[in-house]
Amino acid sequence: MKNYKIAIMAGDGIGPEIMQEAVKVLKLVEERNDVTFELMPALFGACGYFEKGDAFPQETKDICDQADAIIKGPIGLSHEESKKIPIDKQPERGALLPMRRRYKTYANYRPVSLPQSLAHFSPLKPEIIGDGIDLIMVRELVGGLYFGNKEVGVNDDGLRYVKETLEYDENQIRQIMHHAFKLASGRKKVLHNIHKSNVLKSSVLWNEVMEEVATEYPDVKVINILVDAAATLLCLNPTQFDVMVMENMFGDILSDQGGGILGSLGLMPSACLGDEKAYYEPSHGSAPDIAGKNIANPYSMIGSVAMMLEYSFGMVEEAKNVWAAMQGVFADGFSTADLSKPGSGVKMISTDAFGDKVVEKL
Amino acid sequence: MKNYKIAIMAGDGIGPEIMQEAVKVLKLVEERNDVTFELMPALFGACGYFEKGDAFPQETKDICDQADAIIKGPIGLSHEESKKIPIDKQPERGALLPMRRRYKTYANYRPVSLPQSLAHFSPLKPEIIGDGIDLIMVRELVGGLYFGNKEVGVNDDGLRYVKETLEYDENQIRQIMHHAFKLASGRKKVLHNIHKSNVLKSSVLWNEVMEEVATEYPDVKVINILVDAAATLLCLNPTQFDVMVMENMFGDILSDQGGGILGSLGLMPSACLGDEKAYYEPSHGSAPDIAGKNIANPYSMIGSVAMMLEYSFGMVEEAKNVWAAMQGVFADGFSTADLSKPGSGVKMISTDAFGDKVVEKL
Ligand SMILES: CC(C)[C@H](C(=O)O)[C@@H](O)C(=O)O
Ligand SMILES: CC(C)[C@H](C(=O)O)[C@@H](O)C(=O)O
Repeated sequence: MKNYKIAIMAGDGIGPEIMQEAVKVLKLVEERNDVTFELMPALFGACGYFEKGDAFPQETKDICDQADAIIKGPIGLSHEESKKIPIDKQPERGALLPMRRRYKTYANYRPVSLPQSLAHFSPLKPEIIGDGIDLIMVRELVGGLYFGNKEVGVNDDGLRYVKETLEYDENQIRQIMHHAFKLASGRKKVLHNIHKSNVLKSSVLWNEVMEEVATEYPDVKVINILVDAAATLLCLNPTQFDVMVMENMFGDILSDQGGGILGSLGLMPSACLGDEKAYYEPSHGSAPDIAGKNIANPYSMIGSVAMMLEYSFGMVEEAKNVWAAMQGVFADGFSTADLSKPGSGVKMISTDAFGDKVVEKL
Repeated sequence: MKNYKIAIMAGDGIGPEIMQEAVKVLKLVEERNDVTFELMPALFGACGYFEKGDAFPQETKDICDQADAIIKGPIGLSHEESKKIPIDKQPERGALLPMRRRYKTYANYRPVSLPQSLAHFSPLKPEIIGDGIDLIMVRELVGGLYFGNKEVGVNDDGLRYVKETLEYDENQIRQIMHHAFKLASGRKKVLHNIHKSNVLKSSVLWNEVMEEVATEYPDVKVINILVDAAATLLCLNPTQFDVMVMENMFGDILSDQGGGILGSLGLMPSACLGDEKAYYEPSHGSAPDIAGKNIANPYSMIGSVAMMLEYSFGMVEEAKNVWAAMQGVFADGFSTADLSKPGSGVKMISTDAFGDKVVEKL
């Protein structure tokens, strides 16, 4: 009997309600497998700041340190609410980035996937979706502009200025490239390398290291694309992509564009993998405007659980079952409000009803 | 009789063939108005490097210095070809960025526009296009990561690294904000401010200055959106946007996404405005793969001429006529290869036929 400790951080906004559905799934998986999950709830995000004065309180750090895996809901407040918290204590700078750094979760996997049968969810025409979109973005998560030095001040002319640094060294690039090449090697053997080497020197180094690593994966074909061209092609012809690798900020933008082409960020789970620790989270924000209304889509949160089962616990079959159960609910014609606009033909169900249906299917 | 000097830089790849069509339009406008255009051809881009050893040769600088306006085709080579030129002499670093800096063309206007009648060009469903897309991105063009200090070296651990700086001061932000607010004030009085203030300190300053400038434009409503959310919403609901303002790198990516939602980067002209000099260029690259085949879309190049007529010469009516002529060719069911895929119902015509038809309409 395996026993796993899981830190559960529901987060802010819609976090608690979608986490509740993810936990339902987790309990069912526990019941029917030779495994126990010890769930350890912890405060993280604005909730942590308001209760403990710290978005990533020491208690939470202790819990995460002990955990075999961490599952995390979205965090953050509305633009206006955020301003009530000192900039460096805000949930993103005060909790999320410190967690990524603490556990060196440098490899962020963001699947962008929509079977042909769900093409109606997408804002793209069916002929663009073709046989379905099934790509995965591999985003470097602990380098670049996010973690470089930041200098804020007033210059000699009396002008306020900011300088912040985009930093990468070859090791950081190499380790994310190995993830990308391995993934590509196990899939269609094509890797799209996203860069901006015509402007950024960091991309020049990025591409150099990519070419070095490529020699270890002779079966994988590399296609180099400028980040701006990638943004065009994700709209015009997303099915040409299988595995895409990119630095931190590019990954932030393109992966949200990925949510756009699927029809909802609610379809974007993710895995944040380090060599020693991993955490799992939806790619989207905490959507304060719809929080507490039982209308948010728990797909990305439940999908994050599926990724945890696969990557942290090696429960590949159960992960597949969870994906299949969610697709099954969609196939039956049900979805939450984000994907059941009037006229779409999709029957609208609540957050918890979606979770219940997934559990039923399972 | 007004006399304008215009530097004509055809550029690389498809540049010469689309520039030829733009010049046809320019000649016609000259014929029927009380104006003369003195066209001064100049080498710029890879062609400059190969002929003169410099992508932005001194002769070209002199011509541009004298010119009342500059019209520029796309530049650049394929990924593989680029490598034959030393990094700092490549067309982007050796010509384009130096030109932007030389003439301080900080305000880059990129219209993303598709009338309802051309919704079939777009990969988006007709219900997403609704009454048509008609937004304009205002991109800061001479700051940020593009022009910050770049440090390349080997660190104490013997690792290759790069550090490059994203820099803004309050004046740089203020001047682009005035452009954006003025534009918004003359349009729908809504300005979407694109930022990433939950991570970047430069965005914190950006938003601060935006709020200060906003007090001078009380009629304009500001909506703040994170850059990643903007990438989602440009796919899900682009018609909510009218004027969007953003820093340099964000503008590079989102504007190409803009080309994606229209159906082709060939629909993306742009104006690069400084306080003293302006130049005009398509937003897309030089497409070496289709160069010389007479199949490229000259819309973005002719549209750039229209923007020059409007912004540099105040010929607002003629600019409108040029737009209308191009829309007329589309309305007659014709387009170049990018927008006339088999089955689309659009009749395919060549680059020069497109130009001829525009001239006919005019
Ligand atoms: C909340 C924010 C800091 C975060 C990021 O920018 O990485 C989010 O947008 C994401 O993509 O995970
Ligand atoms: C060619 C390149 C340097 C340029 C940029 O990144 O600004 C282009 O992509 C653009 O958008 O004008």
